Amino acid sequence: MEKNTIKIGIIGLGTVGSGVVKTLENFKNIEIKTAAVRNLNKKRDVSVQNITDDPFQIVNDPEIEIVVEVAGGCDPALELITTAIKNKKHIVTANKELLAKFGAQIFDLANENNVSVLYEAAVAGGIPIIGPIKTTLRGNIFSKVAGILNGTTNYILTKMEEKNISYQECLKAAQDLGYAEADPTGDVEGFDAMYKIATLANITFHKRIDVNKIYREGITKISADDIKFANELGYKIKLIGLAQKADENDPDKLDIRVHPMLVPTSNMISGINNAMNAVLLEGFPVDKVMFTGPGAGEFPTASSVVGDIMQIAGELHHTDTVLPLHRCIDKDHAEQIDIKHTKNKYYISIKAPNSKGTIGAIGTVCGNNNINLSSILQKGIKEDNTAQVIVITEIANEIDIQNAICQMKEQNIEINNLIRVM
Amino acid sequence: MEKNTIKIGIIGLGTVGSGVVKTLENFKNIEIKTAAVRNLNKKRDVSVQNITDDPFQIVNDPEIEIVVEVAGGCDPALELITTAIKNKKHIVTANKELLAKFGAQIFDLANENNVSVLYEAAVAGGIPIIGPIKTTLRGNIFSKVAGILNGTTNYILTKMEEKNISYQECLKAAQDLGYAEADPTGDVEGFDAMYKIATLANITFHKRIDVNKIYREGITKISADDIKFANELGYKIKLIGLAQKADENDPDKLDIRVHPMLVPTSNMISGINNAMNAVLLEGFPVDKVMFTGPGAGEFPTASSVVGDIMQIAGELHHTDTVLPLHRCIDKDHAEQIDIKHTKNKYYISIKAPNSKGTIGAIGTVCGNNNINLSSILQKGIKEDNTAQVIVITEIANEIDIQNAICQMKEQNIEINNLIRVM
Repeated sequence: MEKNTIKIGIIGLGTVGSGVVKTLENFKNIEIKTAAVRNLNKKRDVSVQNITDDPFQIVNDPEIEIVVEVAGGCDPALELITTAIKNKKHIVTANKELLAKFGAQIFDLANENNVSVLYEAAVAGGIPIIGPIKTTLRGNIFSKVAGILNGTTNYILTKMEEKNISYQECLKAAQDLGYAEADPTGDVEGFDAMYKIATLANITFHKRIDVNKIYREGITKISADDIKFANELGYKIKLIGLAQKADENDPDKLDIRVHPMLVPTSNMISGINNAMNAVLLEGFPVDKVMFTGPGAGEFPTASSVVGDIMQIAGELHHTDTVLPLHRCIDKDHAEQIDIKHTKNKYYISIKAPNSKGTIGAIGTVCGNNNINLSSILQKGIKEDNTAQVIVITEIANEIDIQNAICQMKEQNIEINNLIRVM
Repeated sequence: MEKNTIKIGIIGLGTVGSGVVKTLENFKNIEIKTAAVRNLNKKRDVSVQNITDDPFQIVNDPEIEIVVEVAGGCDPALELITTAIKNKKHIVTANKELLAKFGAQIFDLANENNVSVLYEAAVAGGIPIIGPIKTTLRGNIFSKVAGILNGTTNYILTKMEEKNISYQECLKAAQDLGYAEADPTGDVEGFDAMYKIATLANITFHKRIDVNKIYREGITKISADDIKFANELGYKIKLIGLAQKADENDPDKLDIRVHPMLVPTSNMISGINNAMNAVLLEGFPVDKVMFTGPGAGEFPTASSVVGDIMQIAGELHHTDTVLPLHRCIDKDHAEQIDIKHTKNKYYISIKAPNSKGTIGAIGTVCGNNNINLSSILQKGIKEDNTAQVIVITEIANEIDIQNAICQMKEQNIEINNLIRVM
């Protein structure tokens, strides 16, 4: 094997970028020629030969063979990456938003230019998942991919449960500790998990995914009571990214969404706590496999970025006709079904007037809408003379559930929360 | 991409071989030209163009580009695989015993002949683990790899716990159900797990491993009482394959072994039940990642075999200088330390005379041997006027524990079992 040094450029020297620089110190055949940053004057704990605030210096540098993009966002990342690809550079990126929104365009361009685009770090941080799906598991026809894809929300939900405190209180604590950002929207409203499930669905089902059609619900409406009641019934509440075949006989139809779910404690996903992530795959012939590990952080994410860099570096300089790694050639668009056409089990937290017949009324509304109940839990009478009732349904149509909820509201039965059940 | 059909040969049409044939039916660019079996007259639920009882027909067939060896054993597998490699064929094998015993020889020969040898199915069945360690995680420096690597023993231990029955009773039931073989030695005495941890240690630490130096202990001495007492103290008993750096400052020194362990219920490995497998990796920068899934079976194992076949097939016919995938170039031998030089926590199940001072005597012997106790549990007095005492120690030297046990025996304190604690 040739031992030529391979020159790379890094766009972004934040948390992940610094981790990449520190990790690459162990590998002498890879040289970080240039790093691009937003602010040249910021103090950093890593040093790189050349630092610039013009990332185009990197993507236009003829000596640089691999461009590592760990800055995030779409602007200017899209332009930088497309320019780099046109300049025949291989790409390693951790940018889940960019891939979810512009993946098709980027992969097409990469194929035209015969370069590799790797993005292991874009989903589930340090957990190997993109590589295994594209290599070891490629003989499978998958029916489902699901997981805990966002560490911040999993941390908040874990602490809400441990400390029996509200979402708001917990968010504040997470922000103070640096686990949540000052503007937490991207995490707590499920955008981050949505980008990741879009990429997972793409490689698992070999279809192009429209990220705008993914149903998305965050964790901001989960109450300490919801978590407590779920626990009593044998569940944990987790923010789940989910992509599955919507119709066994029609491989084009996919059901893709991000929302909180009650996960039975018998399911290993329920045991994934704090900032950990997990990805579960179901398919034939493998049946079910699950991958767990740190979903974010300087070093775990660097592990995935460096793994990608080393894979590309390992292929360079051996031959003139290197095959792009993990080429993405899927051109068909998925037919993404609307949440209202899905079927689920549901947890419904109900605040009902404390009068005779309330449970009966709930039961009647459900019955009228083809909804069978599997558990009912009444949690005493509150000071305002209302009863807290928790219902868990059997599998029901989303449309029927929405109708039932409207009808309950018409009867002054208040709905605290509706959460789907795994 | 070229769509040339690639011809392969399969040696072995047992459980795994059949699964491979059925799975490959979905992939038209791979043609199974010939399958070799031991008994041509056996009825099978799969059909292949040519069936032979002479596997050398496959390894000497100029048309066959990939040889898939799923027959097991070393004779004639070693001769078949080396012949195939010399004939420039790529190899996919599920043969953990062959790799553990003759891996170095096979990899050297493959490098000389510029062919790939892939073996994802040899460890942990359907779980992607060899591929991820060699690709996505290759930027890591690992300190430890550990896991539940044998489905049969995990099934037996799970059922012993669920039903509170003896090992013998459980083995019988597992044999009746086809989960254990008529001669269960390879599984229950830890040989199977030993072969797998040898391969995992090889790729995790980049060292050649002497399988004869791996300490090995099976599950045949685990009693229903051990499992019950472990549960009371917050542990599950699992057969663990373990390879770790023995000395932070000396990367050559490895501690590799297979034996039952008490796993704290807080550790996710404790929740891996029945025939499931799990592999945990610890290293920098990734920290900890865990992979779980089915460790054996027709289809899960076929998933890994077919993944390997498709990876090699994907590289063929594109260029004359295809790089062998996952080339194994590690020539250094590990310095494998003896179990007596390790440190562990221990569970000791003691049967002691019911006399004043027995607990004191146990405590004194431990103290004299530098062993600190973290838990003591006395389980009443038995009919024969003996006391059942369970001790869990802090981290102690294996040598000190062995000395303490000798000294207890000299004082008529009987040792029912000694199990290491994770």
